[in-house]
Amino acid sequence: MITTDICIIGAGPVGLFAVFETGLLKMRCHLIDALPQIGGQLSEIYPHKPIYDIPGYPSITAQELIDNQLKQIEPFKPTFSLGERVDGLEKQEDGSYIVVGSEGTQIHCQVVVIAGGLGCFEPRKPEIQNLANYEGKQVHYMVKNPENFRDQRIVIAGGGDSALDWTIFLSEVAKEVTLVHRSDSFRGAPDSAEKVYHLAQEGKINLLLSHNLHALNGNGHLESISLSNKNKEEVQVNTDHFIPLYGLSPKLGPIADWGLTIDKNAIEVNTFDYSTNIERIYAIGDINTYPGKLKLILCGYHEAALMAQSAFKYVYPDQKLSFKYTTVNGINAF
Amino acid sequence: MITTDICIIGAGPVGLFAVFETGLLKMRCHLIDALPQIGGQLSEIYPHKPIYDIPGYPSITAQELIDNQLKQIEPFKPTFSLGERVDGLEKQEDGSYIVVGSEGTQIHCQVVVIAGGLGCFEPRKPEIQNLANYEGKQVHYMVKNPENFRDQRIVIAGGGDSALDWTIFLSEVAKEVTLVHRSDSFRGAPDSAEKVYHLAQEGKINLLLSHNLHALNGNGHLESISLSNKNKEEVQVNTDHFIPLYGLSPKLGPIADWGLTIDKNAIEVNTFDYSTNIERIYAIGDINTYPGKLKLILCGYHEAALMAQSAFKYVYPDQKLSFKYTTVNGINAF
Ligand SMILES: Cc1cc2nc3c(=O)[nH]c(=O)nc-3n(C[C@H](O)[C@H](O)[C@H](O)COP(=O)(O)OP(=O)(O)OC[C@H]3O[C@@H](n4cnc5c(N)ncnc54)[C@H](O)[C@@H]3O)c2cc1C
Ligand SMILES: Cc1cc2nc3c(=O)[nH]c(=O)nc-3n(C[C@H](O)[C@H](O)[C@H](O)COP(=O)(O)OP(=O)(O)OC[C@H]3O[C@@H](n4cnc5c(N)ncnc54)[C@H](O)[C@@H]3O)c2cc1C
Repeated sequence: MITTDICIIGAGPVGLFAVFETGLLKMRCHLIDALPQIGGQLSEIYPHKPIYDIPGYPSITAQELIDNQLKQIEPFKPTFSLGERVDGLEKQEDGSYIVVGSEGTQIHCQVVVIAGGLGCFEPRKPEIQNLANYEGKQVHYMVKNPENFRDQRIVIAGGGDSALDWTIFLSEVAKEVTLVHRSDSFRGAPDSAEKVYHLAQEGKINLLLSHNLHALNGNGHLESISLSNKNKEEVQVNTDHFIPLYGLSPKLGPIADWGLTIDKNAIEVNTFDYSTNIERIYAIGDINTYPGKLKLILCGYHEAALMAQSAFKYVYPDQKLSFKYTTVNGINAF
Repeated sequence: MITTDICIIGAGPVGLFAVFETGLLKMRCHLIDALPQIGGQLSEIYPHKPIYDIPGYPSITAQELIDNQLKQIEPFKPTFSLGERVDGLEKQEDGSYIVVGSEGTQIHCQVVVIAGGLGCFEPRKPEIQNLANYEGKQVHYMVKNPENFRDQRIVIAGGGDSALDWTIFLSEVAKEVTLVHRSDSFRGAPDSAEKVYHLAQEGKINLLLSHNLHALNGNGHLESISLSNKNKEEVQVNTDHFIPLYGLSPKLGPIADWGLTIDKNAIEVNTFDYSTNIERIYAIGDINTYPGKLKLILCGYHEAALMAQSAFKYVYPDQKLSFKYTTVNGINAF
C-alpha cells in the first residue's frame, strides 16, 4: 500500500503542475497513469510538435514542456505508478480514499485529483468477426515486446505510422510479415511508406493494399485471416498473430461509475476550487467541464492552483493556509 | 483618435497575454499604462527577482518573463500609450467605447479589458507641512529627468533603494545633495548604503540620519526644509527641490467611478468569461475578484484566454468562433 497526501490520476501537464502547486503547500503526491510514460497527450500524441500558447514561451515542443515541468517539480519528489489504469476507488471511514489500479497497486490518500485528460487511451478495434475470441492471446493492440514475435507469422493491419514502423521493425524479427491496409495509400510518414514498398518489392513482407478484413479463423487458436481484395475476391492468410494498429482513442473508463456528475464525458466542477460533487475529489484539466471551459493546457494550470488551496484543508485540517508568492518565499522542499 | 478592436488598460503580464489570446482570434489591441515602461509590477517592483511558479519555468526572472511575453505577442503588433493613466470612459451610441487618457489620448474600441493589477502606482507621500503648496513645482515624487537638477540644491528623503540610488547618482549632478532618513539604518541594498556612507564621509553629500521632516518653508517658492534630529533639536536645510522617495502604492483611481461592481478595491467578474457587470468591459488579472481568486500571474493567463473567446462576439458579431489548437493551426499574424 502506497501512502500519500494526494493521489493524482493522470501524469499529463496538468497533473504534473498539480504536484507543484500542492508541493508549495507541503502536500505530497503520488501519480498513476495508464500510459507507460509521463506527459499525457503531449508525450503520447505530439511530442515533437511546437505549442505556441504556453504563456512566456513563444514556442516550445510538447516534450520540452513536459521535461521542464518535471524539473520544476523535482524539489517535491513525486512518485509514480506508470502503465496502470485506475479502476477502483474505496472510501475509508475517516473520509480518506484508497485508489486501486488495474495491476493491483493501492494508494491511500486524503484527496483524489482526477487529471485524466480525455481519459485512458484505448486501442481502436477493427471490424472483424471473432476478434474477441483471440484478444489477449493472439490478437495484440500494442507491441509490448517484439521478441514475442520472433520466428512467428504475423499480420499487421493499419495505414498510419505505428503500422508502418512496426512492419519495418518486425520484418527483421518475424518469420513472415503481412501488412493489410484498406486503402491504396498510407497516412504515415512518406519515408516509412517508401521503406515498406521497398520491403514488399524485395519479397521481405507481403503487402495487401485495398484489402478489407473479414474474419479470424481457428478453433480457439488463431490459424488464419479472411480478407477480400478490391474485386471482392476472398483471400486467406495463414498466421500465428494478428496485430491491428488503428491508433488509440480515449475513454473515461471506470471513473465514469464513481458517482461523479458527468456531462459529455467530462466531470462537472465548481470554478472556485475545481471540486466535483464528491467531497475530497477534484477534477482538473481536459477531464473537467464548467461554463466557459477551454481544453487548453494553460487553463489546467490555473485549475491546479485553485484546487491546491482548497485541498489543503483535508491534508492539514488544523492549519490555516496563508497565501505567499514564490518570489518572496522561494521553493521549500520537504 | 486611436482606433482598435480592444483597449487593454494595463501592460502587465496579464494585459500582455490578453494581446496574444485575442490576437489568435484576429483581434487587434492597444494598451495604455500609467507607468513609463511595459511589464506592470514585474518590471516596476521586482525585475531581477526569480519567479518559481510560472508553469514550465523552474525559475525565470520577472523581466525575462515580460521580455518573452513581448516576443510571443510580436506577430500581433500591439500598440502602446505609456506613461498615461486612464481617466475617462465614454460609451458610444453603437455600444463601442472611447477610453480617455490623462494626457488626452483617445482610444476608440469595441471592447475594454481592464488588466490594471493593483491599480495605478501612486507615490507614498511624507507627513510634512505645506507639501501640497509645492507639488508639481519643487516637490518631485519621481526623478523623471536628472538633468533638471543640474547645479541645483536638492533634499532627498527615504531609506529604500530608490532614495539611495538617486542620492548616489545625483551626487554627481546636483550642486548640493542632502539625504534625510528617519531611522539610523537603510532598508535598501547594503552596497548602496555603503556607497552613501562613503559619499557622506568624503563630504560629497549631507547625510541626516534619525531626522524627522517638519515643514517646507518659502513663500510660494520653496526655500528650505525644517527637520528635527533625535534630540528634538530643530534643523534647517536650504534647498531648491524636495524629492521624497517613499515608494509607490497602488490606487484603483478613476476606474472606481465607472459603475463597476467593486469589492475591496477589486472588480467583480464572472468566471465563465471574466466579464464585469457592464457589457463589453472585462477585468482580468490582479484587479478582478471572484470566489477562489488568487492573485497569481498564471491565473491571469487563464482569465485572458476565456475573456478572448467571449470578447470575439463584439468585434466580429457575424462570425462563429471555432476553437483551435495553436499546435495544429499555428500563429497567423494579421
Ligand atoms: C494534436 C494536439 C495539439 C494540441 N495543441 C494544443 C495547444 O497548442 N495548446 C494547448 O493548450 N493544448 C493543446 N492540445 C490540448 C492539450 O494537449 C491538452 O489540453 C492537455 O494535454 C491536457 O492535459 P491534461 O493533463 O489535462 O490531460 P492529458 O494530457 O490528456 O493527460 C491525462 C493522462 O491521464 C491518464 N489517465 C486517464 N484516465 C486514467 C485512468 N483511469 N487511470 C490512469 N491514468 C489515466 C492518461 O493516460 C493521460 O496520460 C493539443 C492536443 C492535441 C491532441
Ligand atoms: C514582490 C512581489 C513578488 C511576487 N511574486 C509572485 C510570484 O512569485 N508568482 C506570481 O504569480 N505572482 C507574484 N506576484 C504577483 C504578480 O506580480 C501579480 O499577480 C501580477 O503582476 C499581476 O499582473 P497584472 O497584469 O494583473 O497586473 P500588474 O502587473 O499590476 O500590471 C497592471 C498595470 O496596470 C497599470 N494601470 C493600473 N491602473 C491604470 C490606469 N487607470 N491607467 C493606466 N494604467 C493603469 C499599472 O500601471 C500596471 O502597470 C508578486 C508580486 C510582488 C509585488
